[in-house]
Amino acid sequence: MADEKPVVGIIMGSKSDMPAMEPCMQQLDEFGISYEVKVASAHRKPLEVHEWASTAHERGIKVIIAAAGKAAHLGGVVAAYTPDPVIAVPMKTSDLGGLDSLLSMVQMPSGVPVACVAINGAKNAAILAVQMLGTNCDGCRQKIIDFKAAMAEA
Amino acid sequence: MADEKPVVGIIMGSKSDMPAMEPCMQQLDEFGISYEVKVASAHRKPLEVHEWASTAHERGIKVIIAAAGKAAHLGGVVAAYTPDPVIAVPMKTSDLGGLDSLLSMVQMPSGVPVACVAINGAKNAAILAVQMLGTNCDGCRQKIIDFKAAMAEA
Amino acid sequence: MADEKPVVGIIMGSKSDMPAMEPCMQQLDEFGISYEVKVASAHRKPLEVHEWASTAHERGIKVIIAAAGKAAHLGGVVAAYTPDPVIAVPMKTSDLGGLDSLLSMVQMPSGVPVACVAINGAKNAAILAVQMLGTNCDGCRQKIIDFKAAMAEA
Amino acid sequence: MADEKPVVGIIMGSKSDMPAMEPCMQQLDEFGISYEVKVASAHRKPLEVHEWASTAHERGIKVIIAAAGKAAHLGGVVAAYTPDPVIAVPMKTSDLGGLDSLLSMVQMPSGVPVACVAINGAKNAAILAVQMLGTNCDGCRQKIIDFKAAMAEA
Amino acid sequence: MADEKPVVGIIMGSKSDMPAMEPCMQQLDEFGISYEVKVASAHRKPLEVHEWASTAHERGIKVIIAAAGKAAHLGGVVAAYTPDPVIAVPMKTSDLGGLDSLLSMVQMPSGVPVACVAINGAKNAAILAVQMLGTNCDGCRQKIIDFKAAMAEA
Amino acid sequence: MADEKPVVGIIMGSKSDMPAMEPCMQQLDEFGISYEVKVASAHRKPLEVHEWASTAHERGIKVIIAAAGKAAHLGGVVAAYTPDPVIAVPMKTSDLGGLDSLLSMVQMPSGVPVACVAINGAKNAAILAVQMLGTNCDGCRQKIIDFKAAMAEA
Amino acid sequence: MADEKPVVGIIMGSKSDMPAMEPCMQQLDEFGISYEVKVASAHRKPLEVHEWASTAHERGIKVIIAAAGKAAHLGGVVAAYTPDPVIAVPMKTSDLGGLDSLLSMVQMPSGVPVACVAINGAKNAAILAVQMLGTNCDGCRQKIIDFKAAMAEA
Amino acid sequence: MADEKPVVGIIMGSKSDMPAMEPCMQQLDEFGISYEVKVASAHRKPLEVHEWASTAHERGIKVIIAAAGKAAHLGGVVAAYTPDPVIAVPMKTSDLGGLDSLLSMVQMPSGVPVACVAINGAKNAAILAVQMLGTNCDGCRQKIIDFKAAMAEA
Repeated sequence: MADEKPVVGIIMGSKSDMPAMEPCMQQLDEFGISYEVKVASAHRKPLEVHEWASTAHERGIKVIIAAAGKAAHLGGVVAAYTPDPVIAVPMKTSDLGGLDSLLSMVQMPSGVPVACVAINGAKNAAILAVQMLGTNCDGCRQKIIDFKAAMAEA
Repeated sequence: MADEKPVVGIIMGSKSDMPAMEPCMQQLDEFGISYEVKVASAHRKPLEVHEWASTAHERGIKVIIAAAGKAAHLGGVVAAYTPDPVIAVPMKTSDLGGLDSLLSMVQMPSGVPVACVAINGAKNAAILAVQMLGTNCDGCRQKIIDFKAAMAEA
Repeated sequence: MADEKPVVGIIMGSKSDMPAMEPCMQQLDEFGISYEVKVASAHRKPLEVHEWASTAHERGIKVIIAAAGKAAHLGGVVAAYTPDPVIAVPMKTSDLGGLDSLLSMVQMPSGVPVACVAINGAKNAAILAVQMLGTNCDGCRQKIIDFKAAMAEA
Repeated sequence: MADEKPVVGIIMGSKSDMPAMEPCMQQLDEFGISYEVKVASAHRKPLEVHEWASTAHERGIKVIIAAAGKAAHLGGVVAAYTPDPVIAVPMKTSDLGGLDSLLSMVQMPSGVPVACVAINGAKNAAILAVQMLGTNCDGCRQKIIDFKAAMAEA
Repeated sequence: MADEKPVVGIIMGSKSDMPAMEPCMQQLDEFGISYEVKVASAHRKPLEVHEWASTAHERGIKVIIAAAGKAAHLGGVVAAYTPDPVIAVPMKTSDLGGLDSLLSMVQMPSGVPVACVAINGAKNAAILAVQMLGTNCDGCRQKIIDFKAAMAEA
Repeated sequence: MADEKPVVGIIMGSKSDMPAMEPCMQQLDEFGISYEVKVASAHRKPLEVHEWASTAHERGIKVIIAAAGKAAHLGGVVAAYTPDPVIAVPMKTSDLGGLDSLLSMVQMPSGVPVACVAINGAKNAAILAVQMLGTNCDGCRQKIIDFKAAMAEA
Repeated sequence: MADEKPVVGIIMGSKSDMPAMEPCMQQLDEFGISYEVKVASAHRKPLEVHEWASTAHERGIKVIIAAAGKAAHLGGVVAAYTPDPVIAVPMKTSDLGGLDSLLSMVQMPSGVPVACVAINGAKNAAILAVQMLGTNCDGCRQKIIDFKAAMAEA
Repeated sequence: MADEKPVVGIIMGSKSDMPAMEPCMQQLDEFGISYEVKVASAHRKPLEVHEWASTAHERGIKVIIAAAGKAAHLGGVVAAYTPDPVIAVPMKTSDLGGLDSLLSMVQMPSGVPVACVAINGAKNAAILAVQMLGTNCDGCRQKIIDFKAAMAEA
């Protein structure tokens, strides 16, 4: 998709989240949806995250997917800096199984939502992103219809 | 908003969820976004839910908000019947505080996501719905920008 | 048992649940109780599940066993479509250990129960099915009596 | 129903469980299903529980409903003494919300299942009992069909 | 210790609990405290457990150690049948880590306590048993004093 | 019991634990077992706790009951200073319901057990104390036998 | 303390956290430690939080106390913008009791710690702040010594 | 750092905690901060812990890091004996993942705080210790500034 302007921005808190997020990129590839990928921690590189999130829209990004683990603030931090929808993917953790990531992601206080999917729900994040795009894009919506039909066939 | 075709569909599992969902309707009203409201349990009235979800798009609905408690299947059941994005609002419960509703909502298996917000996160569901609409609607997107600005002022 | 009409219907949300459900089939075999097995996700193939559950009784099925993991709606969805008893087997999950599956299964709202057994309690689901059949079938009841006696001997 | 031999036996660990179990008795009354009620703790009156469970079948009882809270052993203890199906109702607790009762009930080890319903799921226990009876009793099955139809109408 | 009458009775719900309980036997051996070991499930062999627990005192047993997993009723069931103190060892489980065993053991209702140790706390169960015996046996008490001194030296 | 030397020592972390511990004192009174009561926090008054626990045996105390909430270290701290058995009563907490107190009490590491009872299990702590004394005191043991008989009658 | 430059900065996510944080201000007052108080949500006013945290040191602040509830990112967000120590106070929540706030605060990923105290541990946050100041300020350290002595007397 | 007087004292409950604490020592080495290491259980060697904690300040120690697992009292016990700040590192456990260690550490009652970091958060404990020292030591503060800059570069 190198020649298309990305419409989905994927950000993850650490390079170690990459394998768990593979299915997200793969699914977007299958949908033919272009995306950009950024690795930056909300805590270790706050300014970089701020910059990236604040300018995402200018770069053509319409939906953001944020993956992080433990005290997973990345989704909320990105959501604070953009009016666009943010999908949060809580990463499984080795001690609490991801309950920490999940609660840190999903329990957003009033006024700044994120759209949380399951622990390690990378593929579902991709599908949800295309569903969001589909609210005003018949082509995107059709991709989901086809995907669901294929799934029901399988 | 009676004269506008609703673009958001709100469904809840029980009439008793209505007070907790009030802030959702209120926030959509403030945004000037029209919506329809349906009360139907995924378990007690499965065919009615099926019918409602399957025909939502024909009625002009672009985003669905589903609220339910306990073994809260409503979000997932609706998501099974529509290609459109489904926002799930897990209801607080009197015994487990809503942990049951949350896990029943957010832990959707691969292929059929819902966009889960916080326990009783009714207002955030409304904001997220408009954010989704905003992916291809500058007017909706502006509503969120204004909302966030007002919030930062407050 | 190929020549007998199945009286127990086993449905699971994914082929990956099959190994965990093996002990269920094995135990029914040992009891000499015929069964049919169906793999269909409540979310990915809702119509197929609807069809299967709604017609189970016509095929002679008297008890249904539903196994699923994560936001495990299969038990509740099947229970919505049949007046017959539904036994739910919550599958162990790799992140939360099955707490998500368990709460999604057992916390059914008022009006539509499922009979939940332990996480990965496949064998117990088979025993419980025969106990249910035994409420009006002395042969089935005797199978349980013999089984319990053998267990106490072991 | 005083003139009918009870077919459902309800046992609860403490008199204090009575209010929470009211909806169970009420629902059985509405179904026109006769029942007997016993209050006896598995820990404080083990012999009485043993006696009651072991002789239930002789008294005509086909399904047992056991309600208890905290380290709720009553379901398992009764199940140990009868080949008939046992429905367990975990009682809500004031400290852990009933998570303790739930896990003590539902996580039965291999060989001796109970059919667990939701925390304080008294009404559902009644419905499940009649569903079990319905596996070989068309009248009982019809009661459930009618009940579900009424629910869908409501 | 074959020539001494056992004063501690160890009962476990399943042969599979034996490895986890090894440190209990080892520690009692080191203390020179005689014990007997019984494998019997509260659910699969209730009468055998009843018999064993009821007659333990006659055989000279003064403290009972009960180990079980999942819906771990063994401690409570034994405690129902004896006036002697019962130490409960909740077994680690493969899905919930032993939280189920722990709550099933420790949350005993009023009137019938068990003395619960940590999940898989087999060695501590042995120490606690000797501490109990030490309330009126200076020799036993001295064993604990020596054990603690050695531990502080180590 | 003022004229008898206390054999049970009750220590609680805070005066606010007193109402929850009332049933403990009451039950010991009913058993006619003398006790002393101490209020001292393991964290706020460590030396006082040290002194009290280290000299308890000299004062004739044979069993210690320690009640505390939140990060409830009192049981473990007392157990570190005495060879005598320590019964731990985890106090219910207003935020986590007592799960924090329970885990802080029951999960004692190898070598230094406490005998944990249920959250707010004050009465059971008293019964367990007398059961411990009963290992070598027929009078105490008889009190438990009588108590259980009365309970079975009730 | 109006005439002293504040050395502790207190920030909370919402005005509704004020009552729960009262004991923090009170304790600092008792210690005679000057502080400033800021109300700003990490999500609703991210730039204001950024500004406040980044300039705290210039204003003389040496320790920051951050209180927030639910998906409580405030502690981590502040810690991302300052090299100074950040004490996090997880707020009790009405649904999950504060487990969400706690995990969102304490489980900070490698590189950016916060110093987490108990749920609603406002007073302890104040004490910890003065302990931190005491690492190189004998006057502050003496305040803690005196405070502990008074506590041991009480 | 053998020739410098240690300013950080590290204590852990068991030698088995050493590998998990390695990153703490490593990080302090990288900061050029001298430290001493002590292995002593709060329960098995209470007097040694008391002695070590009470005299730490005299040896020049300004911050203490305490690591322990399960019913992890070490942080609280040390905090009871020193006016200096205590950083607690809850160790991951094999059964409950470290939830037990975490709650035993972080939920300290009013008056005696510890500064809790994440489960197995050894490296963060080192960073936090230097942040504390940095409240009145510009050199230490600069180390953190440099560390954060390097992290943002990485």
